Amino acid sequence: PDLEAGTQAAARETQLTKPRGALGRLEELAAWLATWQGRHPPQMQHPRTAVFAGNHGVAALGVSAYPSEVTAQMVQNFIAGGAAVNQLCRAFDADLRVYEMALEQPTADFTQGPAMTGEECARAMAYGMMAVEPNLDVLCLGEMGIGNTTSAAALACALFGGEPEEWVGRGTGVAGAALETKTRVVREGVERHRGSGDPLDLLAALGGLELAAIAGAVLAARLARTPVVLDGFACTVAASVLWKIDPKALEHCIVGHRSVEPGHTRLLEAIGKEPLFDFGMRLGEGSGATLAIGVLKAAVECHGGMATFADAGVSGPA
Amino acid sequence: PDLEAGTQAAARETQLTKPRGALGRLEELAAWLATWQGRHPPQMQHPRTAVFAGNHGVAALGVSAYPSEVTAQMVQNFIAGGAAVNQLCRAFDADLRVYEMALEQPTADFTQGPAMTGEECARAMAYGMMAVEPNLDVLCLGEMGIGNTTSAAALACALFGGEPEEWVGRGTGVAGAALETKTRVVREGVERHRGSGDPLDLLAALGGLELAAIAGAVLAARLARTPVVLDGFACTVAASVLWKIDPKALEHCIVGHRSVEPGHTRLLEAIGKEPLFDFGMRLGEGSGATLAIGVLKAAVECHGGMATFADAGVSGPA
Repeated sequence: PDLEAGTQAAARETQLTKPRGALGRLEELAAWLATWQGRHPPQMQHPRTAVFAGNHGVAALGVSAYPSEVTAQMVQNFIAGGAAVNQLCRAFDADLRVYEMALEQPTADFTQGPAMTGEECARAMAYGMMAVEPNLDVLCLGEMGIGNTTSAAALACALFGGEPEEWVGRGTGVAGAALETKTRVVREGVERHRGSGDPLDLLAALGGLELAAIAGAVLAARLARTPVVLDGFACTVAASVLWKIDPKALEHCIVGHRSVEPGHTRLLEAIGKEPLFDFGMRLGEGSGATLAIGVLKAAVECHGGMATFADAGVSGPA
Repeated sequence: PDLEAGTQAAARETQLTKPRGALGRLEELAAWLATWQGRHPPQMQHPRTAVFAGNHGVAALGVSAYPSEVTAQMVQNFIAGGAAVNQLCRAFDADLRVYEMALEQPTADFTQGPAMTGEECARAMAYGMMAVEPNLDVLCLGEMGIGNTTSAAALACALFGGEPEEWVGRGTGVAGAALETKTRVVREGVERHRGSGDPLDLLAALGGLELAAIAGAVLAARLARTPVVLDGFACTVAASVLWKIDPKALEHCIVGHRSVEPGHTRLLEAIGKEPLFDFGMRLGEGSGATLAIGVLKAAVECHGGMATFADAGVSGPA
């Protein structure tokens, strides 16, 4: 972090033509961007959204409302420009990159053994790290993977404790017997793998390729001076593997929105993050993260573009 | 309202490549825009922010941290492009109009008599109505006026009841003796004028020129098929005069953000509106309303631009 850039941002805020602190979170975001971009004023000319897609062995157990084929179909939809995240990137002039991670080779069913070997998990993390390129002003992260809220719930439960019921939500819309199946699958996975307290081992055992890639991207972004916006439940769980290793590891990350998934609110409390939006969204694919770009642009424009009291000839407080 | 356009919007949502309802509030906003623009799909090509500026007799009583001259100075700042709302409009490609309402002639001190005559108030409302022009996709409303949170607190207290302390906040940053003065001024105004239960009489007695103009603009926008975004405390109080006459009168309005002013939360509960953002802002000048344009653009882009399941060849729920 460049604390000097953050201090410069805070100092400038006091000179701008508004009562001190009157722009609230916009002021905090400008200082946060300066700190993690390592420059003042912060910029928001090159936002990017990266979506990682992977398939999950547990999807075959009936934990999702949709079949596994939908992961690849949605990747084609991203490429064709027809998904929500495409429209959001267009609305905010953001670049979109989609990373397809061996969709024909899903992870293993974690109720039977680890979802990934340590090597597979490390390779997926490295792949995510390579997706971070220089000169991005912000990186919004998202995922696509039928079955991945099951994987994320199991991983969160193993990392943060509690009962599977507290971490399992309806995902794409499961209910009734399917929701019971999902909860049972999570319980079996957690019971089988919880023994290892090591966060990276748990990521391999219960996570997925796209979740490991997100963890890698979060790590690499910090080194590349790129602030990160996390999306909803699955994305935040992936990043929280790093938080579990070191709570400082997510200081360069904010969370775009609060997902409808009940596990997200629980997780946000655990890692101490307050999302920007509470819009009842539950789509994934980076949609709630990408939506934050508009607010970040607004924060940067206000911070850099406003006149000072002296420039504008406006009287200060009496 | 064009309920058919709203119904068309809701029908299209079920076909788009996402689980039903997964875009949450973005879906509601698309249907709301269609309903009040009277067309499907809704559009967001021509957003505008209108800021009304007026001065208040009660400002001379020491209710604000800033002197009354700041109202005119800030209008010059708007014209020069140096205020927060200028940067927000640039960030979201919105048109900005500023309406200066006889700043050299503040309203009368409402602790001594009515702030405005009925005729003055009607003229200010008509002025606000004329600010609504054809072919706007959304109108964001804001105000500037040193002393106007005092006026707004008195008006809200007279309209919705309760004690002055429940409606008075720190405004631009008053504390201690000045906050006590502000509360006393509100109490004196309410006690003097509460007798009239008529909302428009109370607007004249306790409001201000810019607040009356906002009420007029809200009325005219509805007739012009222009959805409205309200800003913070003073702006929402102005609009709530119409709600008090008929709760349906604000159906074409959303509220951009929840202000730090404690009276805003109380008022939002009274009129049943849930703001989009809770960013700890308290600036006025339409800043919290203008910030909503990004989300509205996102809603319109997703609604109009996403592929359907059939178009994209994506499987529906199993």
